[in-house]
Amino acid sequence: MRLVRYGEAGAEKPGLIDAENVLRDLSEEIDDLAGDHLSRATMDRLRALDPKSLAKADPSHRIGPPVGRLGNFIAIGLNYADHARESGAEIPKEPVVFNKAPSSLSGPMDEIPLPSDSKSLDWEVEVAVVIGDPAWRIKEDAALAHIAGFTLCHDVSERDWQRERGGQWTKGKSAPGFGPLGPWLVTPDQIDDPQAIELWLDVNGERMQTGTTANMIFGFSQIVSYLSNFMRLMPGDVITTGTPAGVGMGMKPPRYLKDGDIVTLGSPLLGSQRQVVRLSGE
Amino acid sequence: MRLVRYGEAGAEKPGLIDAENVLRDLSEEIDDLAGDHLSRATMDRLRALDPKSLAKADPSHRIGPPVGRLGNFIAIGLNYADHARESGAEIPKEPVVFNKAPSSLSGPMDEIPLPSDSKSLDWEVEVAVVIGDPAWRIKEDAALAHIAGFTLCHDVSERDWQRERGGQWTKGKSAPGFGPLGPWLVTPDQIDDPQAIELWLDVNGERMQTGTTANMIFGFSQIVSYLSNFMRLMPGDVITTGTPAGVGMGMKPPRYLKDGDIVTLGSPLLGSQRQVVRLSGE
Repeated sequence: MRLVRYGEAGAEKPGLIDAENVLRDLSEEIDDLAGDHLSRATMDRLRALDPKSLAKADPSHRIGPPVGRLGNFIAIGLNYADHARESGAEIPKEPVVFNKAPSSLSGPMDEIPLPSDSKSLDWEVEVAVVIGDPAWRIKEDAALAHIAGFTLCHDVSERDWQRERGGQWTKGKSAPGFGPLGPWLVTPDQIDDPQAIELWLDVNGERMQTGTTANMIFGFSQIVSYLSNFMRLMPGDVITTGTPAGVGMGMKPPRYLKDGDIVTLGSPLLGSQRQVVRLSGE
Repeated sequence: MRLVRYGEAGAEKPGLIDAENVLRDLSEEIDDLAGDHLSRATMDRLRALDPKSLAKADPSHRIGPPVGRLGNFIAIGLNYADHARESGAEIPKEPVVFNKAPSSLSGPMDEIPLPSDSKSLDWEVEVAVVIGDPAWRIKEDAALAHIAGFTLCHDVSERDWQRERGGQWTKGKSAPGFGPLGPWLVTPDQIDDPQAIELWLDVNGERMQTGTTANMIFGFSQIVSYLSNFMRLMPGDVITTGTPAGVGMGMKPPRYLKDGDIVTLGSPLLGSQRQVVRLSGE
């Protein structure tokens, strides 16, 4: 299934994109794509429905992030060797874990507000997983059963705030609009090999990043199992799993986003996002 | 007001401790002490009630954490000079920000499960603030108006996981039961000077930590304003603001918690907590 949330920000309804790419309303089945409705049990129930039995929804709706009531917004750093190199960092021996503020979450086509004092706004295309069932100290071979689905994440990053403002990266990863997610939550049954998902990102139509999850240092199952040793992962937690090379920080000279820039990113399996960077009135 | 949540974990009701220390039920007024019900508007409405008009509740109920649907669980590191020194760290020039997993939240009297492979479980008594109204880029003198209240937090920490497992501290701060919070959410009108709150912590009856928020490097208003430059703080976000000296890691040799240890901590203004450390079955 390709699941979505559509409608105005804060009032999204759950929906489904059927095989003919028609948006169908799921709000008779679940109140939101959130919390316990991300469980394997609910997913199995939704999968058993005939999509044609669901009402069509107006395809002109805004698409929101495909998970409501976001829990923990976790990110894995330096998880592609080429990106670690361009960042001047060592290849990590264990996953580097940091947090984005849940309030940074936004829809895949929403504007990215550029804070007025931001001088180094950067892009990062990533694949995120959404947790469906609680996970505490699970083994790698059990991890996939705890994943509700995969989705595209733009891990928008303010490099000076991330690196120059004293320890821990969360400061540069958390402003409003720094977490576009979606368009679709793609359930695991739709993906033959999660470690072969292709990714790309353009700025103003110029290709900046090309990658594949085949090059992740730590794979999805490894990450979920690893994290579950340190914390109980909960339904609605999102884990974005790192970006391949090609970010602005790695260029010589570095290149950063400015007012009016357009970022597009996508994946054949996960759909695409488009954001306009817009100087924030704050 | 001193607000509480009481009842079984996951099914707590909102309540109030009146001037005679009687537990009163608030569930006719608000469904939970969470989200928008932490706003200044709701707090003003609750303050206008006559506590005697509220039904008494059985005082033998378990007390849960005083905030439901926890949002972002933020922590400030090294925020007391004496603790920074005992940690062998520099005095930070800007607040050090890291995250605890929301799923680490627990009640003030709940057991602390000791993970079977934990070798360095440590204690940290702290004062936390709970955000009541959204805050984005607010000035210091406006910060207090965005705080629903103050509460006691035990920032339980696994030192090896925090320091030896590769970057970013969240790994050592996030296991289930690592975030006892409460007992009370004390509204700002009850506290003459938030920067004069006394704190203490005992292990098995032996005094380990004594401190006062007068010694915080960055005060509450400064922290809330500072964080709001990097992220939109939301109702239900909790910010725990650092610990004074006296943690186990700073002792020579270091001393860590083991199965059966009893940690008690408290503050004259904020009440007290008591936890038994119990080896986890996992």
